[in-house]
Amino acid sequence: SMSAVLLRRLARRLADAPRANQSIRPLSSATAAAREDEGSEKQRHHEKQWTSEWASAALGAGLGLSLLYGYCSTRRVHADAQKQPSISPSDPAFQVPTRADLPVYKREEVKKHGKGADRLWVTYKMGVYDITDFAGDHPGGDKILMAAGGAVDPFWALYAQHKTADVMETLETLRIGSLDPSEPAPVQTADASDPFSTDPERHPALKVNNAKPFNAESPAALLMDNFRTPNDLFFVRNHLPVPKTDLDSHRVRIEGLVHIEGVEVRKELDLSVGDLKKKYKEYEITSAVQCSGNRRAEMQKYKKVAGLMWEGYAISNAKWTGVRLRDVLIDLGVDPNDEKIRHVHLEGADVDPTGKPYGASIPFEKAMSPEVLIAYAMNDEDIPRDHGFPLRLIVPGVVGARQVKWLTLIRLSGEESPSHFQQKDYRVFSPAVQHGDELDWTTVPSIQDYPIQSAFCLPASGTTVDRGTVGERTVGVVLRDGFKIAEDKTVDVAGYAWSGGGRGIIRVEVSPDGGKTWYSAELEQDPDQTQDKMWAWTLFRASIPIPEGASAMDLVVKATDRSYNTQPESAAGIWNIRGLLHNAWHHVEVKIRG
Amino acid sequence: SMSAVLLRRLARRLADAPRANQSIRPLSSATAAAREDEGSEKQRHHEKQWTSEWASAALGAGLGLSLLYGYCSTRRVHADAQKQPSISPSDPAFQVPTRADLPVYKREEVKKHGKGADRLWVTYKMGVYDITDFAGDHPGGDKILMAAGGAVDPFWALYAQHKTADVMETLETLRIGSLDPSEPAPVQTADASDPFSTDPERHPALKVNNAKPFNAESPAALLMDNFRTPNDLFFVRNHLPVPKTDLDSHRVRIEGLVHIEGVEVRKELDLSVGDLKKKYKEYEITSAVQCSGNRRAEMQKYKKVAGLMWEGYAISNAKWTGVRLRDVLIDLGVDPNDEKIRHVHLEGADVDPTGKPYGASIPFEKAMSPEVLIAYAMNDEDIPRDHGFPLRLIVPGVVGARQVKWLTLIRLSGEESPSHFQQKDYRVFSPAVQHGDELDWTTVPSIQDYPIQSAFCLPASGTTVDRGTVGERTVGVVLRDGFKIAEDKTVDVAGYAWSGGGRGIIRVEVSPDGGKTWYSAELEQDPDQTQDKMWAWTLFRASIPIPEGASAMDLVVKATDRSYNTQPESAAGIWNIRGLLHNAWHHVEVKIRG
Repeated sequence: SMSAVLLRRLARRLADAPRANQSIRPLSSATAAAREDEGSEKQRHHEKQWTSEWASAALGAGLGLSLLYGYCSTRRVHADAQKQPSISPSDPAFQVPTRADLPVYKREEVKKHGKGADRLWVTYKMGVYDITDFAGDHPGGDKILMAAGGAVDPFWALYAQHKTADVMETLETLRIGSLDPSEPAPVQTADASDPFSTDPERHPALKVNNAKPFNAESPAALLMDNFRTPNDLFFVRNHLPVPKTDLDSHRVRIEGLVHIEGVEVRKELDLSVGDLKKKYKEYEITSAVQCSGNRRAEMQKYKKVAGLMWEGYAISNAKWTGVRLRDVLIDLGVDPNDEKIRHVHLEGADVDPTGKPYGASIPFEKAMSPEVLIAYAMNDEDIPRDHGFPLRLIVPGVVGARQVKWLTLIRLSGEESPSHFQQKDYRVFSPAVQHGDELDWTTVPSIQDYPIQSAFCLPASGTTVDRGTVGERTVGVVLRDGFKIAEDKTVDVAGYAWSGGGRGIIRVEVSPDGGKTWYSAELEQDPDQTQDKMWAWTLFRASIPIPEGASAMDLVVKATDRSYNTQPESAAGIWNIRGLLHNAWHHVEVKIRG
Repeated sequence: SMSAVLLRRLARRLADAPRANQSIRPLSSATAAAREDEGSEKQRHHEKQWTSEWASAALGAGLGLSLLYGYCSTRRVHADAQKQPSISPSDPAFQVPTRADLPVYKREEVKKHGKGADRLWVTYKMGVYDITDFAGDHPGGDKILMAAGGAVDPFWALYAQHKTADVMETLETLRIGSLDPSEPAPVQTADASDPFSTDPERHPALKVNNAKPFNAESPAALLMDNFRTPNDLFFVRNHLPVPKTDLDSHRVRIEGLVHIEGVEVRKELDLSVGDLKKKYKEYEITSAVQCSGNRRAEMQKYKKVAGLMWEGYAISNAKWTGVRLRDVLIDLGVDPNDEKIRHVHLEGADVDPTGKPYGASIPFEKAMSPEVLIAYAMNDEDIPRDHGFPLRLIVPGVVGARQVKWLTLIRLSGEESPSHFQQKDYRVFSPAVQHGDELDWTTVPSIQDYPIQSAFCLPASGTTVDRGTVGERTVGVVLRDGFKIAEDKTVDVAGYAWSGGGRGIIRVEVSPDGGKTWYSAELEQDPDQTQDKMWAWTLFRASIPIPEGASAMDLVVKATDRSYNTQPESAAGIWNIRGLLHNAWHHVEVKIRG
């Protein structure tokens, strides 16, 4: 069909696009040269049609393809996007036409065409579309299944800036009907006795680990689409119900300590979000946040652990805007070199049933570092309710548990916070401590800096790849420290790497054979950050050659940071009863067909 | 014999002593409690006779026992030592009596009684002693062999403060003769054409890897005797001949950079050691220095690497005294926040045949940190010639190669040092880079911070331990995170752990079975340093239970630092062609007898 031909063409174009759009900091001039070769080779095979045509085509094929291949991940694309006329979603071009010639469906009917059904349907606004042929038509089409049986609207909302009339035109070729206009939109019924009933609505792509309190990881397949994770897809780790905070009435109380001739003087200040914006200079920082339980599910495979079974995606990366905690404290008269101040306590507006708030602390020296922000914006929007509206302390390089959301209190002290979450949680016992042992929490320090970490986002474990298909669709080259060694019969891999303390990722290596052979991956990093102060994560991508005759691959990734720290091979030396800080080599099993 | 009985009694006393003398910072109150139990248990078995009596007994048995069991490693012992009347080596008590009743030997004859001979002899001053029965009489007696066939004087010199008349009395019971007074003392002949001919004399216990330039590691068996490694035993890593420097005429040139309204102004200053001492405040810091090639010989076992085959003892720990580089630069008008200054170049007085000096650089931010010293003293003495006399830059937490010895130049810059040693050495390639590949040094950053490291000093690999003997001589308890679990049939292990960037060692675990089971070791740390600013190394000790029926043990050690970084299991992910920064789990194979 015409539509199938169009889709195939779009798919091929898209398959080329992401590499050209990666804002990769070349590791070497050799790498840069290789990348130029790559460009010219592609030119021999394909028409080069980047930027606006490609972007519109992407959303034309729409739905899952826009999810499949990241294209708003980099500054280059952002810059391109700015050059395009921006079209608002309320523009007539985005209106779904009335189609009296097609049937009307109830939402219940659409739902039956979800994952596993013969025919796969999705809705967009009032339109109903059959994506079966589209999904089966290109590799990676399984991503579309995320929306199958329901609405694609929340997915499209992630990429709104790229929508064009073209997109809608292509989408309409898949139209099979309309939603019944007489059917009321589904509503949530609030239960006044449930403290979680006022929690915000969440994006359907989030992978829920626990509903109350809400804990969900980011969808692995979508994480690579954006260097800065969209707010809706940012992983959520709540300990308590989301508090009802108000922008105007919210206050953060600062309890400073000043020592004047040995006498301790307490200085206090209550600040609204408006006060912070008015009184202090604004700063931006891109910083990853990771839960200390990330990858716990893998540690569980080594030996039983206790806690939420996070896979590998309790990590996300965002741009945060706010004021420096340092500036506020100095304004209060605090001496940055005051040796009697050792810790900074933090509390949030989220409270347990007894009224006790979530609490944590960070070392005073870290609190006085320029990267620590009292943030009021996340990716240029107000911080969403799940992430701390209206104020969150951002402590780059440190574990998520200390980056207190719904921030209400900042208190200087000579001691660590007495909070349960500081004293009896988020501390990593030795592998010598077994389940049933009496736990002496004072024997282990509270987690602050995160150790080095990396994991694949793609492919998913258990994926089967077709040697031929893979070869056909693979573009670009495999680089081994800047040297081209293969162009085809490869499997594309991608993921994230990050280390605490601002230690930049200096390289990521991937292996097709469990760690015997290694290839260096290409890195995407924040160009505004140096290797010594790298708070943002690193995304990596590589095409790994499929070993001759292999019917399966044991893919491995591991990273190295600026201090040349690297990841342990397995959980054997880091296993701990709480399953915290699992950062062993990440393995993904892939089957090869053909 | 009377002497054998005396020696056995001394050996038993000594075997008890070291634990009581360890200045261990308890990790928990549970640990502290366990240590008290340990004390009372020992009291049941043995007379408690610490401090002066014990110390004199130790040197009475003398020779190797003083080397076998550390007793001047801690502040506690230092304090005790101060209470004792100090006896100078020139005191008559140290004079070896004339023994006309005993034969006279040539040095050549003594030499025949070295390691492997039937009878083992040593000399002290003009006395000749047969230590055969002594060496065979107690476990670990093999350490005495270090001196066998030669003089014990240089070993005794390491422990001079403990010598007493008692010591000499005991030593004399082993006397078999005297050196021939007519034989001239051996002299070194200097070869004027050899640039290394003016290198200093070295301690015979150093394990030489390369004679010219001189490279030698510390003797593993002696490293545990002192928290601060004696200057004579501190590992030596020279790239070039040791320069002939002079205390009075030596100058370090400081080339500062000041930016005044965007205009760069170069400020220069030549400072003598006297100037530094007069003009700036003096600071002390205990800091470990480690060669980036430490443990290369183990990486070689995984796969071929290039470089000096260091075992695990190219690391030592000393107290350094000097002035802060920061103070000198600020005095020169340098702005600590000057963003145009990025690096600090360093040069030494050691030059290659073309006259080019050794050079390196460190980041400006590190240079401005309070821990970085222009040092003029090492363990309260002038820095020895091999270690940089008269000035060495001490850059705690950073690899040894940047801590430039014989310091002559400090230059501020926007760029890294162009020195060969900064640009084309001391950078770690990916395991993807193979021998024969073209090397692009710009693709990998220069090593600064060291990753986490640990290794056993005792026992040596290949040691056979007798289950019974071991049980008999073992004192104290094995702790598993503060809980006592075994008292006997254990093997004592000890070693060091360290991490770069000031990241303190939060724990060290040891395993009897290749990493399946773990025990927490006791730690000895610098009580003046915190976990967030720990520049000194950590010494660890543990008694590991011998598994029932085991005929061999695969002992493993690995450490965890304040950022919860830990060591990789093997070289599989960190192997690199230059064999740098090997920090995999350290294994020692021990055979069990009986």
